[in-house]
Amino acid sequence: MKLYVAPRAPNPRRVQMFIAEKGIAGIEEIDVDLNAQAHKTPEFLAKSPLARIPVLELDDGTCLGETRAICTYLEGVAPAPNLMGEDSAARAVIEMTDRRVEFYVLGPLSNWVRHTHPGLAPLENPQFPDFGMSQKSVFLRNLAWLDEVLGRQEFVAGNQFTIADITAFCGMEFAKLMKFRPGEAGFAHIQSWRDRIAARGS
Amino acid sequence: MKLYVAPRAPNPRRVQMFIAEKGIAGIEEIDVDLNAQAHKTPEFLAKSPLARIPVLELDDGTCLGETRAICTYLEGVAPAPNLMGEDSAARAVIEMTDRRVEFYVLGPLSNWVRHTHPGLAPLENPQFPDFGMSQKSVFLRNLAWLDEVLGRQEFVAGNQFTIADITAFCGMEFAKLMKFRPGEAGFAHIQSWRDRIAARGS
Repeated sequence: MKLYVAPRAPNPRRVQMFIAEKGIAGIEEIDVDLNAQAHKTPEFLAKSPLARIPVLELDDGTCLGETRAICTYLEGVAPAPNLMGEDSAARAVIEMTDRRVEFYVLGPLSNWVRHTHPGLAPLENPQFPDFGMSQKSVFLRNLAWLDEVLGRQEFVAGNQFTIADITAFCGMEFAKLMKFRPGEAGFAHIQSWRDRIAARGS
Repeated sequence: MKLYVAPRAPNPRRVQMFIAEKGIAGIEEIDVDLNAQAHKTPEFLAKSPLARIPVLELDDGTCLGETRAICTYLEGVAPAPNLMGEDSAARAVIEMTDRRVEFYVLGPLSNWVRHTHPGLAPLENPQFPDFGMSQKSVFLRNLAWLDEVLGRQEFVAGNQFTIADITAFCGMEFAKLMKFRPGEAGFAHIQSWRDRIAARGS
């Protein structure tokens, strides 16, 4: 299998961390240079029609896109340790939590970065800085929810490490682009959870 | 079980259509009046901490949020007909496609509606009309992808009806708010697929 990634982008990192937590070996990683528009070549669009990374190319040539869908596939390839739920009830709770992190934390954070950071101007053209700054407020408001969650339980989706921790952790790492640290912004529970996750091997 | 919904919002409708396709009976529906801010009362926030609908309240009081996570739970309750994939490989392909529709079609459409439609001003405050109009262009560009997909296969994710058809169909219905019809905009494959889906009982 081959995994198409891009340095610093949060979504490829989610898949890379998922693979490391699973201990899956032998996946070749290929860098795609977004600034050189390498994701918009005909060859890459044949693998990812909407020019998104990451992409997992299977040995039979099938190309899987979308971070969480790639993880669903890999959960089948390597069921242990379970990161997405054993049965449909557990899967639903973890998916709910993962989506909340993705839509309400990572989403506004991405909008803030993409519409205000000068380094993203080539990729997000045009940028809407007023919209981007309003999304920073949404990001901070929704982090208050995550901080409350992590004040009463050890992991984002409950008492075990799951894909939702990976999504949230990669989000906090991405936020460093904006010099954002949860502890400095008053989110002490997120900061101590983040430091515990950072100590893991993955 | 109780399902909290809001008329005209696309996400509750996705769950309602999923339930109808499954033939699950006996779920009580409760309207939440978004314009009256009924989703921001302490009682509702206890069920949905980020004030989102829909919510599925189970008989033991557990509240599940997030459209697709609710469907994952219901797929376990009523496995037939299968709408999300039988094994992890099929689940991954359907999830990939469902997410593409959700992120690249429904997402920009929602931004276009929420940031430009006067009826949404009370909910999206402040609106950013320039950003909203730029998202209309993204929506149209990504519909060209969906039209190409539906030109070569019967359903959005392949040759069987799945949750991805529900997401796309509810998106097209929501687009009527903007007086948008895919056929009039040049997306003939989407229009004929849409008319086939509209003829289903659900």
